[in-house]
Amino acid sequence: MPNEIRKDYLLDRWVIIASERAKRPTDFARRPAQRPSAASCPFCPGNEAKTPPATLVYMPSNGGISKAVDAPGAPPRKGWLVRCFPNLYPALRPREAVILPSEELAVRRDAVGAHEVLVESSRHEEHPGVARLGQLRWVVDATIDRVRELSKWAYVAVFRNHGEEAGASLSHAHSQIIATPMVPRLVAEELEASRAYWEQKGRCPHCLIVGLERSGDRLIYENNRFLALAPWAAVYPFEFWILPKRHGSSLLELQAEERMSFAHAWRVCMGALAEALGDPPYSYGFHIAPSGGGYDLYHWHLEVYPKLVIQAGFENSTGMFINVTAPETAAQSLRLAAQDIEQKLRESGQS
Amino acid sequence: MPNEIRKDYLLDRWVIIASERAKRPTDFARRPAQRPSAASCPFCPGNEAKTPPATLVYMPSNGGISKAVDAPGAPPRKGWLVRCFPNLYPALRPREAVILPSEELAVRRDAVGAHEVLVESSRHEEHPGVARLGQLRWVVDATIDRVRELSKWAYVAVFRNHGEEAGASLSHAHSQIIATPMVPRLVAEELEASRAYWEQKGRCPHCLIVGLERSGDRLIYENNRFLALAPWAAVYPFEFWILPKRHGSSLLELQAEERMSFAHAWRVCMGALAEALGDPPYSYGFHIAPSGGGYDLYHWHLEVYPKLVIQAGFENSTGMFINVTAPETAAQSLRLAAQDIEQKLRESGQS
Repeated sequence: MPNEIRKDYLLDRWVIIASERAKRPTDFARRPAQRPSAASCPFCPGNEAKTPPATLVYMPSNGGISKAVDAPGAPPRKGWLVRCFPNLYPALRPREAVILPSEELAVRRDAVGAHEVLVESSRHEEHPGVARLGQLRWVVDATIDRVRELSKWAYVAVFRNHGEEAGASLSHAHSQIIATPMVPRLVAEELEASRAYWEQKGRCPHCLIVGLERSGDRLIYENNRFLALAPWAAVYPFEFWILPKRHGSSLLELQAEERMSFAHAWRVCMGALAEALGDPPYSYGFHIAPSGGGYDLYHWHLEVYPKLVIQAGFENSTGMFINVTAPETAAQSLRLAAQDIEQKLRESGQS
Repeated sequence: MPNEIRKDYLLDRWVIIASERAKRPTDFARRPAQRPSAASCPFCPGNEAKTPPATLVYMPSNGGISKAVDAPGAPPRKGWLVRCFPNLYPALRPREAVILPSEELAVRRDAVGAHEVLVESSRHEEHPGVARLGQLRWVVDATIDRVRELSKWAYVAVFRNHGEEAGASLSHAHSQIIATPMVPRLVAEELEASRAYWEQKGRCPHCLIVGLERSGDRLIYENNRFLALAPWAAVYPFEFWILPKRHGSSLLELQAEERMSFAHAWRVCMGALAEALGDPPYSYGFHIAPSGGGYDLYHWHLEVYPKLVIQAGFENSTGMFINVTAPETAAQSLRLAAQDIEQKLRESGQS
């Protein structure tokens, strides 16, 4: 059965039924964890032929970079700094949508869109919390390039899973991009709530959040352009967000200085998370405006979800959450760790 | 800091900040899994003093049961069939609510309600998928008793986590009950969508779902009173629901015959899940109408979520889901396993 996107009988909750990944009961037998060595890692340099042709590579060029794409049929490019390519087992595929018949209470859509992998470094372990700042800047740029390229789809979700407990099947530093043919539920809700707030108060709620939290006990880190905080109603222990201080609806608008400033905030905060909690598993996702115009009111940000506890029956069946660490407690630990990371970056001449 | 319930800056998403459980970074260091033996299990008979006084015990009495409560200060009752007591580390506590100051974009409520444990059997391993039908009937009755008792709170969530990967910290057969001072988000959304459907079509959407799925390839099991199906837009691989065929808004309305019929459907389907997938970790939650009147339109049901894959960055940041097993494929496996379980129950004279 080809993949399709189904709506819940009643709720505005969409599920990609990805049968092409074809899991049957025997596939769920518990296997010992696999930690591929660099030699067998399909994302490591030299193994490019194990993954599809690149949709984007950054190649070193005169101290800067040049951008390229693998031609179909040609040997894949080597010597790259960052490499993007389609996921081998995509949840969504880029093609013309066909209209699938829906019935009462059984609504569906064709599973079109895109699903890509962004390999963040040729170095297997160069995760954002330990990356060289210059490398992280290329990751920001490449992410923006792919989001722009995929903006013909309604929404572009950029996210990362780190560690097996957070669902990462490969340990090489990488993030994923899924472009969807509709605006996802949480983003739609954020947009609607932001719009309602604008209409009532005449200003952006996230700009107010930045202003309020800057001086409070949920602040983690701040530089010229960005601020990191433990959110008021954090769903996960040690959850934090990084927000631009200047209003902007998407990564796409970032100027050169802001990109560097974001890379810096990202490096410090992800490093602080690893330092405070011993490199825990985590996920994160960029929250950006949907594609196309009309979403200037949205304030983009990055949300980071450490995977320290298991949320299960209560959360899944009610949509309420129990967080066992107060955001103020989390912020205190992360703030101290961020100061330490900042100090180390300064000493290494990177800051 | 005492527990409190906070609303997201913007979304209608409430989080119980349970600082009384006081997790700090060092609490999250990874420990080897603990599998307590029956001797050290605080839920096993003989260890009643390790848990709070019971709010309800079922005692054997003339071939039936009698109900009792542990008096404060008195020695805990022994020889029980089912035993309920407050969670030692409750997310919510039963007391008068105090008004906590809220601010703009930082709304909160006092963390009042209840959080109980329902030990389903004196036998450590008598989980619903292997339980004696008579025992499971007591579990249904005790669940209904506790839901009724806790109905002074806005909503009573009854749920179960099975296996470490699903967040169960103790392996003794037990479920949990959390009574909340507000109607949780998912239940509120189901109610709103049901009401909209009623207004538009003049009938209950879940009654229609029962009718449609009864003859379809998502059917798993059916008896006189109940039907089990893999839902159209299942969020989790092998997710299934058990619904009453006769419209009813809550467990509280179940008559004797229906209770037995539900226990039977529950036993068969949970047994089928264990047989089809090798006793996988799972969670489930009862979806019932909120407390008080005015919710007759709601159609109660049980939702079971096997924990076979890790959902992380994409799901958490977008509210969309990827399910790698088509519900039709899951239903086929579970249907065959359910037939097998039913056959075994018949042979053992329980059916």
